[in-house]
Amino acid sequence: MTDTQTADTAVTSPRREATRQKLLDAAALVFAEVGVDAASVEAICERAGFTRGAFYSNFETKDELMLALTERVAGEKIDEVADRVAALQARGEELEPGDLVRRLLDAAFDKKQGILLTSEIRTRAMRDPRLAKAYIEWQANLVERVGSFIENLAQTYGFRLRVPATEFAGLILQTWEDTAAFAVMSGLDPEATHTLVNERTARLATALVDPV
Amino acid sequence: MTDTQTADTAVTSPRREATRQKLLDAAALVFAEVGVDAASVEAICERAGFTRGAFYSNFETKDELMLALTERVAGEKIDEVADRVAALQARGEELEPGDLVRRLLDAAFDKKQGILLTSEIRTRAMRDPRLAKAYIEWQANLVERVGSFIENLAQTYGFRLRVPATEFAGLILQTWEDTAAFAVMSGLDPEATHTLVNERTARLATALVDPV
Repeated sequence: MTDTQTADTAVTSPRREATRQKLLDAAALVFAEVGVDAASVEAICERAGFTRGAFYSNFETKDELMLALTERVAGEKIDEVADRVAALQARGEELEPGDLVRRLLDAAFDKKQGILLTSEIRTRAMRDPRLAKAYIEWQANLVERVGSFIENLAQTYGFRLRVPATEFAGLILQTWEDTAAFAVMSGLDPEATHTLVNERTARLATALVDPV
Repeated sequence: MTDTQTADTAVTSPRREATRQKLLDAAALVFAEVGVDAASVEAICERAGFTRGAFYSNFETKDELMLALTERVAGEKIDEVADRVAALQARGEELEPGDLVRRLLDAAFDKKQGILLTSEIRTRAMRDPRLAKAYIEWQANLVERVGSFIENLAQTYGFRLRVPATEFAGLILQTWEDTAAFAVMSGLDPEATHTLVNERTARLATALVDPV
């Protein structure tokens, strides 16, 4: 019996993970469309094409799914930045601080859903201590990693940072998020959003460094 | 009949305004507690001690009340900053950029409700074009006025701003809001919140100016 269960788990685990990811995909869309409060487990299941049973075998509550989604979004952002840093350093071009930031944050700013979700999670975390803990950890992790990229790049390219690297990272990420939120409110198209975010973060980065 | 109506309006208008303000007070509390989505007109009326009739004679919808509340919050913030600038300039002390920012933003950071509401309004505005328009106007107005204070103060105290004054203002306000939101999530008490917000905004201001 124990052997059969182990075998079953081994066989169904990748499928289970796929179900979990599909539920997260569906939840991101539903949250962005109607907001976290109005998003029902039913609507998420319907969007994902699964039963409520599938949902509850993966997540105990909607909040638990939100935590998982926050973590996934965080992981994707961090990985994206890491790839960009590696690619930049491999190329070995000479770059100004503004250009560096542009290249690093040249992310998928067109994803309105992602911008909405981040804002929604932030607001919800302010009322939910468990979600707040995960949100703070995610932000700290993101800022820490981006900060170490910035420190590293500052050495490579010969800039002196006018604030500590993690604070620099926090300001850049904050400006990015704030500008993206403004762009969504203004109904800017993806290209205009992209341009505006790049402009503002690049200007900030330029202001926050001195030549060595 | 028309005369009577006019007389009635004249007599009831201040009372009407008082009712309106009480409904806004109640709404701010209910929004902060349960969020905008979950806040019912009933709950707002109950908290204010008014009937639904009183609500609907002042606001057509909950969204209209949110717009009014956003405008009121904006007006209060702007007036507060204006008072601080006037007081600072009247005193004529010598101040460092960090100190200046501290004095200007030495606001009621302990008001968790206000922080929650601002975050809630921002998220909601991203899904509601009418609210977005009002939110953007409010932010633009706030940034414009704070920017002109900063420009003015930079001249008075002899600082060179490393970014345009309105952008400087936007960064400071953004850092203030972001740090306040983080403090709420972290469960910091009002004093710790105050200290953290002051620290971060002052450090940013210092980094963004040069001596003339």
